[in-house]
Amino acid sequence: MAHFSNPLRKVWAEGRTAVNGWLAVPSVISAEAMAVAGWDSLTIDLQHGTADYSDLLSLLPVIEKSGAASMVRVPWVDEASIMRALDAGAMGIIAPMIETAADAERFVSSCLYPPEGRRSSGPIRARLAFGAGYQPSANREIVTLAMIETRSAVDELEAILKVPGLTGVYIGPSDLGSAFGHGPGFDRSEPEVLELIEHIRRTTADAGLVCCLHCGAPDYARDVAARGMNLVTISSDARFIEAGAMETVKAFRRTA
Amino acid sequence: MAHFSNPLRKVWAEGRTAVNGWLAVPSVISAEAMAVAGWDSLTIDLQHGTADYSDLLSLLPVIEKSGAASMVRVPWVDEASIMRALDAGAMGIIAPMIETAADAERFVSSCLYPPEGRRSSGPIRARLAFGAGYQPSANREIVTLAMIETRSAVDELEAILKVPGLTGVYIGPSDLGSAFGHGPGFDRSEPEVLELIEHIRRTTADAGLVCCLHCGAPDYARDVAARGMNLVTISSDARFIEAGAMETVKAFRRTA
Amino acid sequence: MAHFSNPLRKVWAEGRTAVNGWLAVPSVISAEAMAVAGWDSLTIDLQHGTADYSDLLSLLPVIEKSGAASMVRVPWVDEASIMRALDAGAMGIIAPMIETAADAERFVSSCLYPPEGRRSSGPIRARLAFGAGYQPSANREIVTLAMIETRSAVDELEAILKVPGLTGVYIGPSDLGSAFGHGPGFDRSEPEVLELIEHIRRTTADAGLVCCLHCGAPDYARDVAARGMNLVTISSDARFIEAGAMETVKAFRRTA
Amino acid sequence: MAHFSNPLRKVWAEGRTAVNGWLAVPSVISAEAMAVAGWDSLTIDLQHGTADYSDLLSLLPVIEKSGAASMVRVPWVDEASIMRALDAGAMGIIAPMIETAADAERFVSSCLYPPEGRRSSGPIRARLAFGAGYQPSANREIVTLAMIETRSAVDELEAILKVPGLTGVYIGPSDLGSAFGHGPGFDRSEPEVLELIEHIRRTTADAGLVCCLHCGAPDYARDVAARGMNLVTISSDARFIEAGAMETVKAFRRTA
Amino acid sequence: MAHFSNPLRKVWAEGRTAVNGWLAVPSVISAEAMAVAGWDSLTIDLQHGTADYSDLLSLLPVIEKSGAASMVRVPWVDEASIMRALDAGAMGIIAPMIETAADAERFVSSCLYPPEGRRSSGPIRARLAFGAGYQPSANREIVTLAMIETRSAVDELEAILKVPGLTGVYIGPSDLGSAFGHGPGFDRSEPEVLELIEHIRRTTADAGLVCCLHCGAPDYARDVAARGMNLVTISSDARFIEAGAMETVKAFRRTA
Amino acid sequence: MAHFSNPLRKVWAEGRTAVNGWLAVPSVISAEAMAVAGWDSLTIDLQHGTADYSDLLSLLPVIEKSGAASMVRVPWVDEASIMRALDAGAMGIIAPMIETAADAERFVSSCLYPPEGRRSSGPIRARLAFGAGYQPSANREIVTLAMIETRSAVDELEAILKVPGLTGVYIGPSDLGSAFGHGPGFDRSEPEVLELIEHIRRTTADAGLVCCLHCGAPDYARDVAARGMNLVTISSDARFIEAGAMETVKAFRRTA
Repeated sequence: MAHFSNPLRKVWAEGRTAVNGWLAVPSVISAEAMAVAGWDSLTIDLQHGTADYSDLLSLLPVIEKSGAASMVRVPWVDEASIMRALDAGAMGIIAPMIETAADAERFVSSCLYPPEGRRSSGPIRARLAFGAGYQPSANREIVTLAMIETRSAVDELEAILKVPGLTGVYIGPSDLGSAFGHGPGFDRSEPEVLELIEHIRRTTADAGLVCCLHCGAPDYARDVAARGMNLVTISSDARFIEAGAMETVKAFRRTA
Repeated sequence: MAHFSNPLRKVWAEGRTAVNGWLAVPSVISAEAMAVAGWDSLTIDLQHGTADYSDLLSLLPVIEKSGAASMVRVPWVDEASIMRALDAGAMGIIAPMIETAADAERFVSSCLYPPEGRRSSGPIRARLAFGAGYQPSANREIVTLAMIETRSAVDELEAILKVPGLTGVYIGPSDLGSAFGHGPGFDRSEPEVLELIEHIRRTTADAGLVCCLHCGAPDYARDVAARGMNLVTISSDARFIEAGAMETVKAFRRTA
Repeated sequence: MAHFSNPLRKVWAEGRTAVNGWLAVPSVISAEAMAVAGWDSLTIDLQHGTADYSDLLSLLPVIEKSGAASMVRVPWVDEASIMRALDAGAMGIIAPMIETAADAERFVSSCLYPPEGRRSSGPIRARLAFGAGYQPSANREIVTLAMIETRSAVDELEAILKVPGLTGVYIGPSDLGSAFGHGPGFDRSEPEVLELIEHIRRTTADAGLVCCLHCGAPDYARDVAARGMNLVTISSDARFIEAGAMETVKAFRRTA
Repeated sequence: MAHFSNPLRKVWAEGRTAVNGWLAVPSVISAEAMAVAGWDSLTIDLQHGTADYSDLLSLLPVIEKSGAASMVRVPWVDEASIMRALDAGAMGIIAPMIETAADAERFVSSCLYPPEGRRSSGPIRARLAFGAGYQPSANREIVTLAMIETRSAVDELEAILKVPGLTGVYIGPSDLGSAFGHGPGFDRSEPEVLELIEHIRRTTADAGLVCCLHCGAPDYARDVAARGMNLVTISSDARFIEAGAMETVKAFRRTA
Repeated sequence: MAHFSNPLRKVWAEGRTAVNGWLAVPSVISAEAMAVAGWDSLTIDLQHGTADYSDLLSLLPVIEKSGAASMVRVPWVDEASIMRALDAGAMGIIAPMIETAADAERFVSSCLYPPEGRRSSGPIRARLAFGAGYQPSANREIVTLAMIETRSAVDELEAILKVPGLTGVYIGPSDLGSAFGHGPGFDRSEPEVLELIEHIRRTTADAGLVCCLHCGAPDYARDVAARGMNLVTISSDARFIEAGAMETVKAFRRTA
Repeated sequence: MAHFSNPLRKVWAEGRTAVNGWLAVPSVISAEAMAVAGWDSLTIDLQHGTADYSDLLSLLPVIEKSGAASMVRVPWVDEASIMRALDAGAMGIIAPMIETAADAERFVSSCLYPPEGRRSSGPIRARLAFGAGYQPSANREIVTLAMIETRSAVDELEAILKVPGLTGVYIGPSDLGSAFGHGPGFDRSEPEVLELIEHIRRTTADAGLVCCLHCGAPDYARDVAARGMNLVTISSDARFIEAGAMETVKAFRRTA
């Protein structure tokens, strides 16, 4: 327990595609119900989910206990959100709406201790959770994923990928689709969006970084994994509830 | 909005079987994800769920907004739990482990204002939620369901059913099965347990009261509904998460 | 700050009628807004209010800071609720639905350390808040008020008043009125209820104990104070909001 | 319930002045006590109130249930606060300290989906609360109010009013008065401040946008409504408690 | 992680004295700061501590992660408190104020599934935390400790020890000292109290059960461990803060 | 209670070195356990601690009740965090990572009302806690401390110290040490770091401002106090727990 090594890096070192669960409900019991499924990583969503900083303190131990890597999507690229999530013990950060190399630099430097970055020292919970070995290994183990979900991000992709310390990119298909005029939604099938996703993936792979995609259904996720995506998120706790409830009521009420 | 009329009573007046959702997660957002499915009633479980009194204040408005009846399963038959849940606006109470007519009388009298019972006056949230008409109509609209889940309860069933003001019984198949030596579990198929359930249902129907059953799957629930059960609970929010997560990870990882 | 002396006892020693504020909203900021008004005591209502045990920890410091005595109405007469409220630092307890001398004895003995009672030792917050002097003076300073609000309580009044250690009684006019067939409500004017209240007050005074009454409006409270009531509660935080909001919207919308 | 139409827009379409309630207390029960009064809208104040993001999840359902429009004043103009409040279901945003057209553009573009703005897609609670129709109608229904409360804002008013998508302005009389050397306070009577308020209102009306004012008392609010103000806030939940408590204690203690 | 085996039973099987930490602060971060010290078990105190049921959900995962056994002291012997703590995943229960064999029977039967007891089935978090193996092994692994802290308990000790399923006793020296006229306090040195403690320990050992003692300082705990005590609690999180703070300020301010 | 005067200013006026306690645990009871020790000030750490805005509402009354000055370290220099902490009643702000005079100006102007700064008016809790006298005296009493912990801050120190309204600087030795290549840690002994600290202290003193240092142990703090430091922080609540627990378990388990 006293080591800090990020399970995601092991998955990628083995050449596997990580399957990532998504936590939008800020409750310990729903996180435990998710955690039993054996995800490679679990992401607490502080942007479009409903957890807040305080919830990290109770959700992160649950994720750690399951053996999954713990990720946090911060609400926006700001130093306070990023550093507090890491101090709480997040093993990686997904940063939304990265549009330029400058955004990415601000993001990555907030995740890394000097001299690589300017993260402030004080890993209150991370040190308790991972031991004295945390701080020396943090810069090596923490995963930094920049969300690519705007026209500007696509245009600036190569510059973004050159930011030292960036682990990879995370494609937000809903905003990306909207940015290119196709409306929101996951599991895109529009040729233009599919091409964009493949372009981002290939460019990222060429740069030696990982590429991740937010998906809705396991079949779609399997397909993109087969095509080389390094991490796929599938659905979320809130969507499992909604889908389970709707299917159940519908199945009960169907006319024989 | 200013009326207090219990939607469950309307379902039963129409001769329909109510389909009840089960809330074990003490979170507003998971309750909203459940509430969109169109359940006839939603029960907040304070016994084997993880909500506590304080959670009622935020969960009950979500249930009311959905149009479903709001039920609370209290952790045990005690005056404080029952009266506080009702003051918070619960439209009905499910009381666990009712074993005798005396238990049932203590339960029902805690739910009803004098002279029918001894509920203390002070419906802090119920009055705000349902208006000045709440208190005069409360005794008529509140639903009281006694759980039948022990040998003693089965033995005492007729006496329990005679307690004035009792709306009906709620069968807990897991404890009932255990009590008769068959171990825990929902959706029982052991002939002895099935017979017990049918015995309870028929005896309750003969007494002119409603009979409810906790179920795991919609097909099982449809069957018991077809045989005259008045309310069926199906699964829960926590189980929808767990099942959704396990199926998703399994589907993603299956070998082609 | 290191002394534990109950401000209510000083008010009564001076022969004044205490004016008590009522906290139904479990929020620090609403308690602070109440506390500036200069009440002699403030009561956190765990029965018909919406605070729960956890809220005591943040509300009690606010009351103490204001100089008022801190009281807690427990949800029911049970050892856990009473002892935990006292350990959290409540200077007195109001116990609902006391119907017999046995109820009162159970209540009072839960409030007092041995040999006078059977309160368990471990005043976690009380010792921090009031210092090492707390435990030796607790039995002398803590105020115990038994609610008189049923026919049985009226019948048993003299026996209840003889319970050693009881400080006095607290009349719940809404339940008392209901018990005698007049329906719920504060500031009663029915001759029978007025007579009952006066009977309870006089019998209590004759026994050398204090008598308290829950009121709705300051004028009514002034009248009963003038007739010898030792403590009057007036309205509550939730009612101040409701009344303020309704009067404001009405005043704005009135036709000129 | 599955529609997303902002009640405030209906009030304004009918040519009425909306009366807005102000929530500074982060408690469900105080919000319910406010909500019964029939306000046209209720604003949760995250700037000078004490609610935080997490409180939105439980307060917004209460406001929706009442039929009022739900507004949130964010603590500052930042993307995270604005987008999270909207995702939680806020029907409109009041943004403090707008000083330039650039501030207003940043504010408005954070409230609107592409192509009008750059709000990120993921309305976690808004979709559950308002249905699938939410996202297509959000840009049309969401209300965006820029606070005018500094010298710079007054100087830049016409440029601010030209920002596409801005619904109107909200005058903060306390900061505005301070900025012009008159100290803090509501319901201003200084001729210079009155003239400023009328100047802002008239300029805003000329631009075809709505003008709103924070008020303390209903009479003052009636006057400004009569002069054409489109929305008036009156007092707050915390002030109703404070005023109610102080008047009550004073009334009780007044010498006859 | 999918096994349910109680680490305390392993300690005792090895003939060691368990050292137990005490959690009075209901915070995840303080629990993590405690958990790194390597206690054999950690007890969340719901009686004289300040945690409440809801806190169990976030504190228990932290304890499990540390490898320590998780214990809960319930506020009083009632079915709801006991069963809810176990459903949340507590590996053992300490029950205060056991005075008779009947009390002990009520306590133990609430901890065990039928046919040994009458615990209701529904281990919501325990099943998620410990897997499908939880329920079959629960009766064997759960630890039940009856507090001996009154004259009656001492008188009834042999009968209490005969209750089937009881794991042992937990001596509360503060209440026990008070009961015998010596005032509250830990680490007793009065000959009468020492003799009582030794009498309880020896009687319990003779009955083949474990005996536990609440201590204040490690030296005292070492002594009683050497004399055969099976578990010793030492101090608490709240006392570590208080002592650390007082020593620090004193050390800083001491005159050279 | 109705005055707002900052106890820290009195300590400094008397020429004493203030001893400051550090709150990293967001719990009322741990704050009470800290507060009894008699610190001159207590700082709630929103940067590397685990409290969040909402916790301020319950922690600040506890600090005020103790007589200590209440300080808040904000997570980053942003208007929302600073103004909300002050509105909640913080008597002073510690701002991390001040690197330039522009940073310091932004920080200080967020703390002061016009015309000295641009703090927005609305001290919701501060007015309730300190009375009507709060707002007129706030600019005079509030303490503003800029953290000096980077190379840039050291280079810009004289410019930073010239920012009108700045009370002084707070040295973060861990980040400062890292910035100069010595790794994280408190109570530095590297000659270069010691010289830097002395340089900062002397330059600050020459500018007539106060200089503060974060320390780990009382002896180190005494030394720096003797050399003229105006405020020393020593350890934290979380570290008292961790150290107390580790020493206790170690002492118990030491071989005789």
